[in-house]
Amino acid sequence: MVRLEIDQKSLKKALGLLKGVVPPKSSKPLHTYVYLAVKDGTLSLRGTNGEVDLELSLPAQANGEGEVLIPGEVFFGLSEEASGETVALELQEARLHLGAKSFRADLRVAPTAGYPEFVFPGEGEEISLPAEVFIRGASQVRYAASKQEYRPIFRGVQLELKEGGLRFVATDGYRLALHDFAHPFPLEKTVVIPDLSLGKVLHVLEAVQAKEITLRFAPAVLGLEVPGETLSARMAVRLMEGTLPGYEHAIPKEFVAQVLVETRALKEALERLEVLTDKENRRLDFVLGEGYLHISTKGERGEGEEEVPAQVEGALDFSVNARYLLEALPKADRTLIRLSGPVSPMVVAPGEGGGYQAVLVPLRV
Amino acid sequence: MVRLEIDQKSLKKALGLLKGVVPPKSSKPLHTYVYLAVKDGTLSLRGTNGEVDLELSLPAQANGEGEVLIPGEVFFGLSEEASGETVALELQEARLHLGAKSFRADLRVAPTAGYPEFVFPGEGEEISLPAEVFIRGASQVRYAASKQEYRPIFRGVQLELKEGGLRFVATDGYRLALHDFAHPFPLEKTVVIPDLSLGKVLHVLEAVQAKEITLRFAPAVLGLEVPGETLSARMAVRLMEGTLPGYEHAIPKEFVAQVLVETRALKEALERLEVLTDKENRRLDFVLGEGYLHISTKGERGEGEEEVPAQVEGALDFSVNARYLLEALPKADRTLIRLSGPVSPMVVAPGEGGGYQAVLVPLRV
Repeated sequence: MVRLEIDQKSLKKALGLLKGVVPPKSSKPLHTYVYLAVKDGTLSLRGTNGEVDLELSLPAQANGEGEVLIPGEVFFGLSEEASGETVALELQEARLHLGAKSFRADLRVAPTAGYPEFVFPGEGEEISLPAEVFIRGASQVRYAASKQEYRPIFRGVQLELKEGGLRFVATDGYRLALHDFAHPFPLEKTVVIPDLSLGKVLHVLEAVQAKEITLRFAPAVLGLEVPGETLSARMAVRLMEGTLPGYEHAIPKEFVAQVLVETRALKEALERLEVLTDKENRRLDFVLGEGYLHISTKGERGEGEEEVPAQVEGALDFSVNARYLLEALPKADRTLIRLSGPVSPMVVAPGEGGGYQAVLVPLRV
Repeated sequence: MVRLEIDQKSLKKALGLLKGVVPPKSSKPLHTYVYLAVKDGTLSLRGTNGEVDLELSLPAQANGEGEVLIPGEVFFGLSEEASGETVALELQEARLHLGAKSFRADLRVAPTAGYPEFVFPGEGEEISLPAEVFIRGASQVRYAASKQEYRPIFRGVQLELKEGGLRFVATDGYRLALHDFAHPFPLEKTVVIPDLSLGKVLHVLEAVQAKEITLRFAPAVLGLEVPGETLSARMAVRLMEGTLPGYEHAIPKEFVAQVLVETRALKEALERLEVLTDKENRRLDFVLGEGYLHISTKGERGEGEEEVPAQVEGALDFSVNARYLLEALPKADRTLIRLSGPVSPMVVAPGEGGGYQAVLVPLRV
């Protein structure tokens, strides 16, 4: 029998994260379990959905070693309702005994035989980078990944490592978002992470509050080490096959006009006018004026217009999908829109500069 | 042409409430519109879903009278995104012109012919009561109304007016909740309000922040007048046919044991143990001890137990559905559970007294 005592809040946090990965039901019943292991004064909790493996480690005062499978649903439910500072666990033959203050429970557990192996790459090329860089880059470009079933590669976010830096890219074939970070890396690597898995990675990075993370590259798998103060995580994410088709040619390099505008004022105007656009293409018409951007729409339900103060260079009328432009807006006080022609791509970027760029194709007039 | 100017926040609030009633799609297309009328310096906005008619009135500076139908979806969307202190409206032939700061829009509108009449009772017996009483009574008992399709009367909340007071009652045939208020009324009346409509009534009462409301009774319709400071409402709610079957006999009058317990401690213990109950009946077993209530469960997924400190009189073991007891808990610091026998009904009420009581039937051992 193994006895251990763990911090209640850390356990709750760990199981909360595993709940985001472990499915409540699955055609592979073992996927609905949490793998619990005690070894060397550490409690490891592991779950998988077949695409993402997540392992969380937390320090535990333990008197031995052992491992079992615990039905996820009941374990998650109990930890959500747990109270008290610490939780005492006792691993018995086919039972996990759990005590917290005056509450005690005995859960039926299963042996670990047959549980899928953790595919975390034992070795391979690896790099370290600030967690904040990964979070910011991945979060900023995800919107441009496709939600459609066809052309699966578009449903991923591409991570490109080069000597000079790191790039996150997503595209659905109609628009493109990318975020560059200058950072010296010793290796070149391009991988595509399924967007659904990436969401789970970001959730873990934010919850664990790691400062520095390590990425380890193995064939078809990306490993992440996420060391935290009270709770550390390791993840193994199945990568998509292939890479995004060449997109560099779609990014215009020369521009005929540009407009610099307060992001918030532009966003609010776009949101108001979007209500009046026709649903099939959400078309808005833009005119660059002297000191303002004029935005209008004329559709089945009515028409609307608004002027937003702006610093304008050049003169060009263009039209664009309101939703696409809203999603492309940078997380920055000011937005710079650079235009390469009435029907050729435009680039949306932070007015203050920075590594983010979105490429949108105007709607034909 | 009618021009008017209205407070932007009040318009937003009014349209937000109408959005809760006006369906985005309907087999009766006119139900998807908002009826807008300007008369005597007041803007009235009205919507219906066939079950509930809601009319909101707000003061407006207007230069004439007029009425139109406005497509709900686009009107709601625009008001959610509106900014500025006031909104200027202009009613033209087949257009509503809307301006707020630098934003302007023209919406296509329709004539009001054929729009369903507001069934607010013009006359009938009526009473006034504090809005707070209606909100508290109705909110406390709603959980016991049935969510099932069969026996429709159980999907309503019954309102009983008697000389001595007011009672809200709901039951799904398995449990009962009632809330009494002492209040002298000049009339006797029993009506059943569909729970779905009652939800919309409560939403309006809370948003309008009326102090005193008036209920007016007509055949098959309950009218509510809800006067607020910046926004006033009138509602007409279709009532259910018939009344709840006699339930008084189900409320025990004599008890063999009782337990008084901190509501919060009981609630947390029930939530923890509920996780371990079997899903078909969520059975928990209770034992009254000296100075404590012992709660346990033994199911397919494991077993658990907890003791909650309590003031106990008498001795009785009983079992009950965890979810039913959780939902029946009073909004009060302490809970009093009175028992009439191992398989006869129990009464759950606030330890401090008050008009709320829930009746639950124990599970058979």
